[in-house]
Amino acid sequence: MKVELVSNILDANTAIAEQNRQLFARKGVFVLNLMSAPGAGKTTILEKTIETLGDQLRVGVVEGDICTTRDAERIAAHGIPVVQINTDGACHLDANMILRSVQNLPLNELDLLVIENVGNLVCPAEFDLGEDLKAMVISVTEGNDKPTKYPLMFRESRAILVNKLDLQPYTDFSLDVLGKDLAELNPQAKVFPVSAKTGEGIAEWCQWLVDTVMAKNQPPE
Amino acid sequence: MKVELVSNILDANTAIAEQNRQLFARKGVFVLNLMSAPGAGKTTILEKTIETLGDQLRVGVVEGDICTTRDAERIAAHGIPVVQINTDGACHLDANMILRSVQNLPLNELDLLVIENVGNLVCPAEFDLGEDLKAMVISVTEGNDKPTKYPLMFRESRAILVNKLDLQPYTDFSLDVLGKDLAELNPQAKVFPVSAKTGEGIAEWCQWLVDTVMAKNQPPE
Repeated sequence: MKVELVSNILDANTAIAEQNRQLFARKGVFVLNLMSAPGAGKTTILEKTIETLGDQLRVGVVEGDICTTRDAERIAAHGIPVVQINTDGACHLDANMILRSVQNLPLNELDLLVIENVGNLVCPAEFDLGEDLKAMVISVTEGNDKPTKYPLMFRESRAILVNKLDLQPYTDFSLDVLGKDLAELNPQAKVFPVSAKTGEGIAEWCQWLVDTVMAKNQPPE
Repeated sequence: MKVELVSNILDANTAIAEQNRQLFARKGVFVLNLMSAPGAGKTTILEKTIETLGDQLRVGVVEGDICTTRDAERIAAHGIPVVQINTDGACHLDANMILRSVQNLPLNELDLLVIENVGNLVCPAEFDLGEDLKAMVISVTEGNDKPTKYPLMFRESRAILVNKLDLQPYTDFSLDVLGKDLAELNPQAKVFPVSAKTGEGIAEWCQWLVDTVMAKNQPPE
């Protein structure tokens, strides 16, 4: 009976995610679901991404947090539309939270909507939000064992940003080891070594993001 | 109806946690529930703790992971009893997982049982396992905003280990800011700045742990 309810919750989530997906398609907005462990640097990467994109893409943001509006305030300082979801204890965003929150965003005026998920390497990967693209951030200070210990998110993400590259000399993190693990888990994943602090690698990530958004958002002939 | 079921799950968990607590009391074993975000360094701290404790306490370990037995293998290499729980996707341990797993440990021969929870700053704090002490690890590379963004775990933990102190010079993490946040959230918490890599601060943490275990495990007169 417990199992059945869980399956119902996930079914309901999938149905609403599909509704979201259709809404985003109608509005011509590309949606990125950005996930990571707490403290991996999602918000700082997002700030650098917004700065680097400049006027190449019109960006809006949904900020997911258990409580506080800190991250939304950081994003709003960049002068772009942002809504905050406080999950009130829940460890992930679900499709219904997104459906309700985007009603407060000018979707018609956006090319790219970034959903910054709750900091958690587990559950966010299980919930379809109706996004076009799942990406994740792993920081070098978290160690090399994360892909095998938390495989689902690494499997689900089309892009994997490896952050805090500036701290790599002080850790034993190896990009080669990450590459070997991904060869098994998710060989198609694009890996972007970056440092949100120094800006290294952010241009490459942004270029790929622009290309990906453009490829999707091209109007049909 | 959903709310009711969640409450039933938590009620059931609390009942089994109480059963665990009585079992641990009968066996005279002190139980520590160790929590953190992924990659904060729980396992390395645990390895250093086991080495430092030496024969002061007889230690056993329950390793919680979503998959893999990597951490259990690291602990077993220290020659102490360990069981691995694979949660198969679940983002936290619950009391029933503990009840089943400790049947494979020689509880009569242990002074201290350490339960290393799943790497997650959210849900583990919600599930009573029947432990005597909740402690958490936060690493300086995760940033200073974690207590206000993930308050429950910081509120529930009697001891907070601040790890990766060796990387502090390369971050903007401030122990003063942490102290101010804890003054509001959890003024009684003991804070231990440590580096599992260099060993700094581990002796102080271990001494406090020994004192705490001894105070609890003293036989009644």
